[in-house]
Amino acid sequence: MTIGIIGLGLIGGSLGLALKKLNYKILGFDNNPIHRSAALKYGLIDKGVADIELLLNEAEVIIIATPVTAIEQLVTTLLRSSRSDQVLIDCGSTKKSICEIANLCPNRDRFVAAHPIAGTEFSGPAAAISDLFTGQKMILCDSEKSNKRSLQIARSLFTELGMELIYMPSDEHDIHLAYVSHLSHVSSFALSLTALEIEKSHEQILNLSGSGFASTVRLAKSNPDTWKSIFLANKENLLVAVKEYQNQLSNLQKALENENSEELLKLMTRASEIKKILK
Amino acid sequence: MTIGIIGLGLIGGSLGLALKKLNYKILGFDNNPIHRSAALKYGLIDKGVADIELLLNEAEVIIIATPVTAIEQLVTTLLRSSRSDQVLIDCGSTKKSICEIANLCPNRDRFVAAHPIAGTEFSGPAAAISDLFTGQKMILCDSEKSNKRSLQIARSLFTELGMELIYMPSDEHDIHLAYVSHLSHVSSFALSLTALEIEKSHEQILNLSGSGFASTVRLAKSNPDTWKSIFLANKENLLVAVKEYQNQLSNLQKALENENSEELLKLMTRASEIKKILK
Repeated sequence: MTIGIIGLGLIGGSLGLALKKLNYKILGFDNNPIHRSAALKYGLIDKGVADIELLLNEAEVIIIATPVTAIEQLVTTLLRSSRSDQVLIDCGSTKKSICEIANLCPNRDRFVAAHPIAGTEFSGPAAAISDLFTGQKMILCDSEKSNKRSLQIARSLFTELGMELIYMPSDEHDIHLAYVSHLSHVSSFALSLTALEIEKSHEQILNLSGSGFASTVRLAKSNPDTWKSIFLANKENLLVAVKEYQNQLSNLQKALENENSEELLKLMTRASEIKKILK
Repeated sequence: MTIGIIGLGLIGGSLGLALKKLNYKILGFDNNPIHRSAALKYGLIDKGVADIELLLNEAEVIIIATPVTAIEQLVTTLLRSSRSDQVLIDCGSTKKSICEIANLCPNRDRFVAAHPIAGTEFSGPAAAISDLFTGQKMILCDSEKSNKRSLQIARSLFTELGMELIYMPSDEHDIHLAYVSHLSHVSSFALSLTALEIEKSHEQILNLSGSGFASTVRLAKSNPDTWKSIFLANKENLLVAVKEYQNQLSNLQKALENENSEELLKLMTRASEIKKILK
């Protein structure tokens, strides 16, 4: 089977690498010709194509792994031009807006909305890792709107990659991800901005940071374009999450201001219960 | 040489383990008798003592690795009872209040104020790791107030552990650490509280979290007692850092609210520059 991948960054590149290992033939397209040739050089794809049309002619499965804004645009064009034996899968980190657009398209049933819970803070073809998806979760959204064959092909590909499949309505997906992924990115970007701001007046401050700072600020290294698209696509849910985060921050701040040792301990003890959930 | 360690948690336990490997004789004291016997069982110490007096009788070097509040209390008592051939070293994560107290004590020059930039989110004797300090930084504060011999012994011990020594006034230390460590903990505690709050109404939400959430929330697993002491001891600096963090968060929030794509991208691009500093 020939699989076409659009977008050859961390996700698309890692998919190419892993699916090539499983003996699929991988065609790759990326708007950026440098990414396309890098993907070929790193062995992420078998062949690079300079035009999405060519990919659509040859591939039976087309995976879109671009930023969310580009997915929203591509879904319409690709579904319209697709053949009945083709499957279109996206890998966007938000799902509601993408599914809403797909619902208005002809051939909606050839589309499978997917989100792999996998990634690193690195981006571009050089960041691709062959086992990025092994043992990770793949969320399939609004799967009742995909036809049986498309869904079956998508499921079997992801299962072959060693992923655990989870089914969920796209609107619920976006609420949950606002809390367990998008908010983490906001907190990390803000932490980096804070440290860089103070760094201006206190040279070398970051030299003193340890693994704790590295861990909390890691996501700020993520691709700003990718994450701008995700934040905007999940604006409403993310703003609710940010507001709750600001409330919790302000509770800690007040307890500290008042030197309310008991309240501080209560809040931190409650927070530390996360270790019962995340081992 | 016999070294006495007071506080047999992550830091004290790891010091015991590493110094034992270097053939020092390690005596250990912990307020909690269960920690004391666990430290002996795990081989973190050669001998547990039930009374700090006994440790003070036998050890030439005494290292305090308790929460900051307890260090503030112990420094006075121990300096007062110390002999001229003894060295007292603390490992607290804040330094200004501890040094201020030490400055009022007799035998101030037998004291070396130290802070190892090393740790994990785990605590207690079971969390001890023999190479926790290898290749890490050790900050020595107000070292001009220690006598030559004490400073020499402390430096040589930490160098033997493979640590890089950095010298700094205690007040500067506390400002810097507020930004590159303590604030990270506040952000992580608040993130955990936010996720747990929403978890109440959305079951299983944390099941969907990936490595990004795990990384940003990791520090919330830290010992609440330890961190309560640190936050209170560095209250003023930490509140300034939290305020700047809230400003940065609010800038991101406003850009998102207004769907100001350009501003969002600008902020996130600036934030992502942290990767030039932290590789």
